[in-house]
Amino acid sequence: MRSALQRGRVDALLVTHLPNIRYLCGFTGSAGILLITESKSVFFTDGRYKEQAATEVQGAQVVIGKKSALAQSAEWLRANAKQLGVKVLGLEAEHSTIAEKGQLRTALGSSLRFKDTYGLVERARMIKDEEEIACLREAVQLGSSLFEVVLKAIRPGRKEVEVAAELEYAARRAGAEGMSFETIVASGPRSALPHGRASEAEIPKNGFVVCDFGIILAGYCSDMTRTVHVGAPSSDARHMYESVRDSQEAAVERVGSGVSAGEVDRAARQLLTNKGLGKYFSHSTGHGVGLEIHEPPRVARAQSEALEAGMVITIEPGVYIPQTGGVRIEDMVLVTEDGCQVLTPTRKELVVI
Amino acid sequence: MRSALQRGRVDALLVTHLPNIRYLCGFTGSAGILLITESKSVFFTDGRYKEQAATEVQGAQVVIGKKSALAQSAEWLRANAKQLGVKVLGLEAEHSTIAEKGQLRTALGSSLRFKDTYGLVERARMIKDEEEIACLREAVQLGSSLFEVVLKAIRPGRKEVEVAAELEYAARRAGAEGMSFETIVASGPRSALPHGRASEAEIPKNGFVVCDFGIILAGYCSDMTRTVHVGAPSSDARHMYESVRDSQEAAVERVGSGVSAGEVDRAARQLLTNKGLGKYFSHSTGHGVGLEIHEPPRVARAQSEALEAGMVITIEPGVYIPQTGGVRIEDMVLVTEDGCQVLTPTRKELVVI
Repeated sequence: MRSALQRGRVDALLVTHLPNIRYLCGFTGSAGILLITESKSVFFTDGRYKEQAATEVQGAQVVIGKKSALAQSAEWLRANAKQLGVKVLGLEAEHSTIAEKGQLRTALGSSLRFKDTYGLVERARMIKDEEEIACLREAVQLGSSLFEVVLKAIRPGRKEVEVAAELEYAARRAGAEGMSFETIVASGPRSALPHGRASEAEIPKNGFVVCDFGIILAGYCSDMTRTVHVGAPSSDARHMYESVRDSQEAAVERVGSGVSAGEVDRAARQLLTNKGLGKYFSHSTGHGVGLEIHEPPRVARAQSEALEAGMVITIEPGVYIPQTGGVRIEDMVLVTEDGCQVLTPTRKELVVI
Repeated sequence: MRSALQRGRVDALLVTHLPNIRYLCGFTGSAGILLITESKSVFFTDGRYKEQAATEVQGAQVVIGKKSALAQSAEWLRANAKQLGVKVLGLEAEHSTIAEKGQLRTALGSSLRFKDTYGLVERARMIKDEEEIACLREAVQLGSSLFEVVLKAIRPGRKEVEVAAELEYAARRAGAEGMSFETIVASGPRSALPHGRASEAEIPKNGFVVCDFGIILAGYCSDMTRTVHVGAPSSDARHMYESVRDSQEAAVERVGSGVSAGEVDRAARQLLTNKGLGKYFSHSTGHGVGLEIHEPPRVARAQSEALEAGMVITIEPGVYIPQTGGVRIEDMVLVTEDGCQVLTPTRKELVVI
């Protein structure tokens, strides 16, 4: 992180975003702050996490106090900043609230200058190391294995939430720490909602069912979407499905080190436009995945950022026709020097139930 | 909310916190911003939520755009602020990030003055209306009914996560939208961790098992904790359990409109101190519950805020002896004019498994 401090032109960084804290020092609890300086890192938390911090935190001194982690970090800085040569303190602008900055300003007065930083830790997190890739592979493997459970659970008349219940139960029993986001089971006309969380709606006799779900294993998230069809699909439905599958595969084809994220998005979008479905693709093509379900890079329109080997992203185009139905297909892929490796092993032919 | 705008001395408030948005206009999605002025409310979101916003949002104009909700709200303000007499714009200081404030400042220049606001919507949310209380009652009822599932699932040799899996499966099948926080099943020495999320650890032959869980129903959260004992409890274990139960009941006794939250905390703490266990009670006594699992008021040391009829809070003292074990007992209670009503119907005698 030293080069990150230099890049951000700060002498120290106050890390408040929990996934960043976990990445840097291993703490998995839900209250704590990590202070990084050139020579020293200090982790602050409260009494509830005393034992957990002692077990988990690596590479940082642990300070347990009665006040909030933020108040403790301010006190510590007041006592130690000068000695450590900390004059400019970086704050994570995208994660620290206005209130937190105000509290620090009150506590520290003019003794320190604050500087807003953007994505200093996230930039490091974008490129996964071998150990992280291994964790992601295992999470994806477990996630994909659950698609069989989903297939068995889907049948006309069943509630979407019942399908989600079967899936989540199987996930837990298979050792998942939890789901990486609220399970989406969107059937019939609801499949036209890109974010159709499993509801009390019953699966109809004929229509698409979009299943988008992920699990957490050793802190790392999986994310996949498959769309199945209940009853015999019309030729329009087949056209929709095959167009999305081709779009997804075209985007995967485009992925590689040095290719911009925007080019990958364009590949997906172009194919759907050619099939007359471009206007129904209402979201972006994908996003990074790791300790968080959504993290940089964004795979979206006009994103000039070049992909790099070691990034793990989703490729998930979709088509949503209001009141009618929708299709989305999503894999996780690892960017490599000469292309990519699709991590999600689940087949993509249209499954008819 | 008009009186809230006046209290905050702002002409308009930009609501960015999703539970506040849901409370005010009904939107349950995960991206959107609500702008409230004296005469008009406008909700901004993107294409993914077009149908959902049309169905859910009440009392506000819906604006769908291609940019982020924040960027859209800034554009709208630039075009309409003058006409509506908006000179001072309130930002939710505890929820808006430094980056969001910076983005608004860049987009709006000096045309508007920003003012940090604290808890304007949360203050309204603290007092639940009849409809909300009915929702909370139903959530608590469903949550409590699941304790039977937990009791059946707990046995020596079983993994904590398996107990959590049974519980969460039953919750989903019973119609819960999800769990209101990560399920805690902390057994044996792990019961000494106040936040011991269900782990791969096996339930020992003898020891406490702390079970802290909640579900979400119609957006409202339930929260309860019961501690059971596997195997015959020692007299020390019985003493611990009974002290926590007495402490919990003493705090409940103290609850009422006009009583300060700090007094309730003191009642719980005093009893444990009298039993020689005060130093092992390392957290606060409770918190508000509603659309969020933790919301104001805090029931903690020295909180001078007076409880009011219509607040729904938890009462959850605990005792945690490192390397040995812990006990916590938690109910949700509704503050009434002349005391309180315990919402959680589950019995509190020590269950031995």
